[in-house]
Amino acid sequence: MTPAAPAYRRLSVEERRSQLLEAALGLFAHRAPEDVSLDDVAEAAGVSRPLVYRYFPGGKQQLYEAALRSAAEELQQCFDEPREGPLLDRLSRALDRYLAFVDQHDAGFSALLQGGSVVETSRTTAIVDGVRRAAALHILSHLGVTEPSSRLRMTVRMWITAVEAASLIWLDDDKEPPVDELRDWLVEQFVAVLSVTARRDPQTAALVQALAADG
Amino acid sequence: MTPAAPAYRRLSVEERRSQLLEAALGLFAHRAPEDVSLDDVAEAAGVSRPLVYRYFPGGKQQLYEAALRSAAEELQQCFDEPREGPLLDRLSRALDRYLAFVDQHDAGFSALLQGGSVVETSRTTAIVDGVRRAAALHILSHLGVTEPSSRLRMTVRMWITAVEAASLIWLDDDKEPPVDELRDWLVEQFVAVLSVTARRDPQTAALVQALAADG
Repeated sequence: MTPAAPAYRRLSVEERRSQLLEAALGLFAHRAPEDVSLDDVAEAAGVSRPLVYRYFPGGKQQLYEAALRSAAEELQQCFDEPREGPLLDRLSRALDRYLAFVDQHDAGFSALLQGGSVVETSRTTAIVDGVRRAAALHILSHLGVTEPSSRLRMTVRMWITAVEAASLIWLDDDKEPPVDELRDWLVEQFVAVLSVTARRDPQTAALVQALAADG
Repeated sequence: MTPAAPAYRRLSVEERRSQLLEAALGLFAHRAPEDVSLDDVAEAAGVSRPLVYRYFPGGKQQLYEAALRSAAEELQQCFDEPREGPLLDRLSRALDRYLAFVDQHDAGFSALLQGGSVVETSRTTAIVDGVRRAAALHILSHLGVTEPSSRLRMTVRMWITAVEAASLIWLDDDKEPPVDELRDWLVEQFVAVLSVTARRDPQTAALVQALAADG
């Protein structure tokens, strides 16, 4: 080993695993999963290819799924929001964190949600669906609803899908409009679709009244 | 051949191909693509397995993509609507046809849009995206818009995604609410999200005014 080589420190198994996942996420953020090789991950992490294989013997698919799981956890943390203050302010703050995540993960986020990737499987789809479900549960819980009517549940899930679509288009459109405007626009859409549902669902009508009285 | 065997008629290549695609679509409508074998398709069409392979030498993947293309064409025909009468009535009629398609294709529709299927590839994703793009173009063209602002385009695409999500949830929820109510609800959501966008986009504001004066 020459003195120019990176300083070597023994990492714990968990530290090493995190390091490799972080390197992988960094690469997946800028390229489609099919364009990232294990060699690239080894190089980005400054380790040997066999070491990457030792941690992820299932190869790229396993590494991708692990990276995805780690990103999904990070994404779910965006939804954590104290139950204090006006509801729409809480939604705005959660959206700010979510949009920062989208901004940061960029191409990887697109590849994942646009589907048809070679690394997409029923397992990766399940991970993404888990995040969607978690988002819906967070929203309903902040709204104080434990037993949502089917129309309210459907409205919340439709809005979450629309937010995803907006994120992808926003990335495609070189992150226009500015993130603050996008956030406000999405919050206003949330109120607008709830108001439409309120016309046919008493539970949603009560929520819309509460939102208007809130803040 | 016993007298009980099905009457045999020579079909043209195109007729035979259509017959096989129809049989395949019928099966894909009730089962996930991974649970449909070429044997099943042969049996449903009342032909031999080698004959299915002669038409689709690429096997199930090729058959699935051909069936998907044929379904996509059928779906795009749902959007054909004469440029007459109030705009929201036209949208309602197109939605009626779209929801009838969803109702009829059921499990196949879900499998396709939920992703992660073993038969999903970048080609199948491109076919589905093509339908989404066609839907957006139809809507913008009925609205009389040839150069949509990015906010208007984004709003239309978000609503289309929300309609897709609604269709999937509707299938999951045993087709509740009734299809007429779902259609009206979706149309009202369209107006509501356009109205939100109108606050930040003059082109959309003009459209919302025209919609209100319409009918």
